Amino acid sequence: MEWSVYLSGEIHTDWRERIVGDAQDMELPVVFSGPVTDHGASDDCGAHILGQEEKKFWHDNKGAKLNAIRTRTLIEQSDIVVVRFGDKYKQWNAAFDAGYASALGKPLIVLHDETLTHPLKEVDAAALAVAETAEQVVDILRYVIRGELSR
Amino acid sequence: MEWSVYLSGEIHTDWRERIVGDAQDMELPVVFSGPVTDHGASDDCGAHILGQEEKKFWHDNKGAKLNAIRTRTLIEQSDIVVVRFGDKYKQWNAAFDAGYASALGKPLIVLHDETLTHPLKEVDAAALAVAETAEQVVDILRYVIRGELSR
Amino acid sequence: MEWSVYLSGEIHTDWRERIVGDAQDMELPVVFSGPVTDHGASDDCGAHILGQEEKKFWHDNKGAKLNAIRTRTLIEQSDIVVVRFGDKYKQWNAAFDAGYASALGKPLIVLHDETLTHPLKEVDAAALAVAETAEQVVDILRYVIRGELSR
Amino acid sequence: MEWSVYLSGEIHTDWRERIVGDAQDMELPVVFSGPVTDHGASDDCGAHILGQEEKKFWHDNKGAKLNAIRTRTLIEQSDIVVVRFGDKYKQWNAAFDAGYASALGKPLIVLHDETLTHPLKEVDAAALAVAETAEQVVDILRYVIRGELSR
Amino acid sequence: MEWSVYLSGEIHTDWRERIVGDAQDMELPVVFSGPVTDHGASDDCGAHILGQEEKKFWHDNKGAKLNAIRTRTLIEQSDIVVVRFGDKYKQWNAAFDAGYASALGKPLIVLHDETLTHPLKEVDAAALAVAETAEQVVDILRYVIRGELSR
Amino acid sequence: MEWSVYLSGEIHTDWRERIVGDAQDMELPVVFSGPVTDHGASDDCGAHILGQEEKKFWHDNKGAKLNAIRTRTLIEQSDIVVVRFGDKYKQWNAAFDAGYASALGKPLIVLHDETLTHPLKEVDAAALAVAETAEQVVDILRYVIRGELSR
Amino acid sequence: MEWSVYLSGEIHTDWRERIVGDAQDMELPVVFSGPVTDHGASDDCGAHILGQEEKKFWHDNKGAKLNAIRTRTLIEQSDIVVVRFGDKYKQWNAAFDAGYASALGKPLIVLHDETLTHPLKEVDAAALAVAETAEQVVDILRYVIRGELSR
Amino acid sequence: MEWSVYLSGEIHTDWRERIVGDAQDMELPVVFSGPVTDHGASDDCGAHILGQEEKKFWHDNKGAKLNAIRTRTLIEQSDIVVVRFGDKYKQWNAAFDAGYASALGKPLIVLHDETLTHPLKEVDAAALAVAETAEQVVDILRYVIRGELSR
Repeated sequence: MEWSVYLSGEIHTDWRERIVGDAQDMELPVVFSGPVTDHGASDDCGAHILGQEEKKFWHDNKGAKLNAIRTRTLIEQSDIVVVRFGDKYKQWNAAFDAGYASALGKPLIVLHDETLTHPLKEVDAAALAVAETAEQVVDILRYVIRGELSR
Repeated sequence: MEWSVYLSGEIHTDWRERIVGDAQDMELPVVFSGPVTDHGASDDCGAHILGQEEKKFWHDNKGAKLNAIRTRTLIEQSDIVVVRFGDKYKQWNAAFDAGYASALGKPLIVLHDETLTHPLKEVDAAALAVAETAEQVVDILRYVIRGELSR
Repeated sequence: MEWSVYLSGEIHTDWRERIVGDAQDMELPVVFSGPVTDHGASDDCGAHILGQEEKKFWHDNKGAKLNAIRTRTLIEQSDIVVVRFGDKYKQWNAAFDAGYASALGKPLIVLHDETLTHPLKEVDAAALAVAETAEQVVDILRYVIRGELSR
Repeated sequence: MEWSVYLSGEIHTDWRERIVGDAQDMELPVVFSGPVTDHGASDDCGAHILGQEEKKFWHDNKGAKLNAIRTRTLIEQSDIVVVRFGDKYKQWNAAFDAGYASALGKPLIVLHDETLTHPLKEVDAAALAVAETAEQVVDILRYVIRGELSR
Repeated sequence: MEWSVYLSGEIHTDWRERIVGDAQDMELPVVFSGPVTDHGASDDCGAHILGQEEKKFWHDNKGAKLNAIRTRTLIEQSDIVVVRFGDKYKQWNAAFDAGYASALGKPLIVLHDETLTHPLKEVDAAALAVAETAEQVVDILRYVIRGELSR
Repeated sequence: MEWSVYLSGEIHTDWRERIVGDAQDMELPVVFSGPVTDHGASDDCGAHILGQEEKKFWHDNKGAKLNAIRTRTLIEQSDIVVVRFGDKYKQWNAAFDAGYASALGKPLIVLHDETLTHPLKEVDAAALAVAETAEQVVDILRYVIRGELSR
Repeated sequence: MEWSVYLSGEIHTDWRERIVGDAQDMELPVVFSGPVTDHGASDDCGAHILGQEEKKFWHDNKGAKLNAIRTRTLIEQSDIVVVRFGDKYKQWNAAFDAGYASALGKPLIVLHDETLTHPLKEVDAAALAVAETAEQVVDILRYVIRGELSR
Repeated sequence: MEWSVYLSGEIHTDWRERIVGDAQDMELPVVFSGPVTDHGASDDCGAHILGQEEKKFWHDNKGAKLNAIRTRTLIEQSDIVVVRFGDKYKQWNAAFDAGYASALGKPLIVLHDETLTHPLKEVDAAALAVAETAEQVVDILRYVIRGELSR
């Protein structure tokens, strides 16, 4: 069986690459997916394809909806959802994805530093695992899929 | 018909009271619900009832799970979910609730200042209305329930 | 048991009043609901409550979404959905409601003149009854609820 | 991952061919499906296979139900539903499909000229994108699937 | 709590009256519902309300669809479904109701003589109880609701 | 796309073989499934594998439940369910399957002689097509899958 | 709002009475339900009502199915499920109820002594609260419903 | 069609190997899955990957949740769930899995010695087959998939 894992959240660090790379090194049967991580494209896709808007609200709204076509479809088709919170920006979309995945009954893995424990307590409470490093996420996937523990 | 409206999010301003008060003045047939808004109780309920924890993580985890018994039940039973974002704190629980409600197909009304438009674009994109004031939320409820427009 | 019946579609003739009046005369245990039928309010509610828009598209979009808060909630809570098609206007919202109700598994009664049989064939094919008069709809409700046939 | 996209609506222009052709040129991993677009076959299939009817209503009813075996199955299996409205005919089946897809939670892309904005406002309000050209639909698919923006 | 029990199947003996009467004598908090049991009305309702048909098939089809508005709504709203099979007629509608209720996850009680055990084995296999007398059905309801056993 | 079609009902005539054979001749992309059609095996499987029973009821019950493991799984995985009623036996399992498939929202094709129209009216009312011959069923599949009409 | 709480598990101690009594003293708006707690009746109900069986297996099977009519209905209608494990007996039905409630998405409170932590780890992992005393369960209900903490 | 069968329960005997081996010998098209059966790894995975805990409860809790990522995903994707109860240990996780699978509507096969009939009566009552040997389970799979009976 091939597992589908959706990687939601932070887009300005290399956590996705580290997870994907490690999983490939271990030859885990996982297909990863995630949002569009080109920040500019993600922000402007709506206006670029469907036409410019004068108001910032509609500019953002058109783009966010296009992105939703991708993210909701991929979250619904995933077996496991991993959500990463960093220390910058509001990241409300990451928390939104966590809530969305949770209501769909998807097993949730949250990834963040210990310093964010308190503001993330409701999200963590909905998770089956709370990791602090990308390596732990890969270890979880390896254990869940193959039952192997030690690195 | 009586409408059930869940008020999620910010707990340190009086937006809930203003919505509930206005709705009562208009005699709208709405039953409002929401999270426990006593901040201290909300944070400590788990340890208080089920026993202290040395680690902050488990202290928060126990509390957040007790709160989830309340919030998930009430969100699932509501007809409409209103989520308020203020300018302080991370408020990831508000965004989580918005995602949760959205995946359940609940009509979502988001309430926030114009300054938060960009970081909230994904949440707004999932909403059927984005309001800036508590009064607008009550006007929406009045229109949705009674078809009346002018204040 | 009280039955909930949603009356979707045409808003410029008196078909709703005739159904509701007849049902009341027969003392049928039915609670009727429907969209906001004040055409102006329905068109302008979004801009009126949430602020004017320069572009017609967003003016319409904001209003249609507020109306959706009402219509989707009421359709989901109804036992039976009646959809009326008249000979004027596009009435795509009526057909949309019919599709929406159909996918939710709601028993569908369609009401239209014989002249519209061909363009409405897909909608009729999803219905459990196709009536031509408001009186027939009430007769159906009476039969379904009480088992009584002759007028 | 291969994406399934259902193309609903207008059958007398070449919008489907243009979308399918462009997507093939870009080698997008999309499998397109849609209704039977042979107008005569679509109208007469019921009577042709299952026997003639004297009444127009039953002629249409038998055919529309056969078509529903196809359309509902394909809509339920699709990831994205695109609905095209042209300037001719009633097209209530297109609006019905949009409502059906919407209640199933399928991401909806609506395709129509600006002149139809007002009568389609309820359908547009349920969509994640409203496009005016077939090229825009392909651009959306490309962005959603590959994250690529500029043509 | 008030329990909703749907009584499906045989309409030419008094089994419904016996169950309802006994339950009333025991003051069980049960609301019973069932199909229209006036055989003539049930057969002719479609043609009577919506217009005569020359073909027997459409005469039956129109009537059966009106009856389905009632039966599906009531089965979906019931807590328990009881299906009675007698020794006359085909009673395919009773077996259809049993399958329908079963797929909805409704607890199923089947009521029939021992002589019908073999042809009803698939229906019985989906049931939580197979009774031979109306009295046993009431005893089951009493036990399930009140925990009382001996008559 | 490969279509899954479940063939339920009558097991003592060759209707399944005719449908499967015709579909193969036309190279339709259909995978057919159905119940175990070895009558003796179907009746005795429970007792044979899990141990003999003295009472006929439990003999039948054990067998019917084993068959249910197969039939429910296959019905739930099918795109279309065809149910055949012949003129012999009670065939309550066929009607049960039709109700089960119907509650799951599966497109239903019923196959029976005109003489059975009246007792099957409730089953037919839930169907998207009512055919009288195996050839018509294959014609429907061909039209639904390929849009081709004339034989 | 009135909350529905199902009390599953151990039937030979007074934990239910203590929870119900305490909740009444606090005037919590809770309706409690649970299995039939008369052990003899619960074991013999099937044979008593539907006829004796020689084999122990069928005696138990008939009884367990009647009890399932009650327990599954009440679990599905509850807002919260509390499951109590004591130190005697296998109590597999309690663990079964916990899994059943969990798959339905019901908030789960597990009640057991610390000594059972290891064998109950999978059940506890699915719970939103793990309590050791009946008093804690009532404290949780009070907090969840009223937001009140200190006793 | 390939069948997915999840093997839950007892991990210290070779029942899984016997079922898998026999099924392979018969070339049944079955993909088996199950929990991690390395007892030590299963107990310690949480602490090993995510960090040690002083309290036994959290040690177990972290591990049980990682295991739940695997077990719930595989149970939800399986066609049939087999649950084995042995004579040792509490095995509440096996009963939990049975309840979970049952609420999801998965066909359930329970495997245990006759001596456990009484304490397992509620679990057995939810099953479509109760087997005493691994060989019987394989015979069931063979019959269900191929319709073949005699060994």
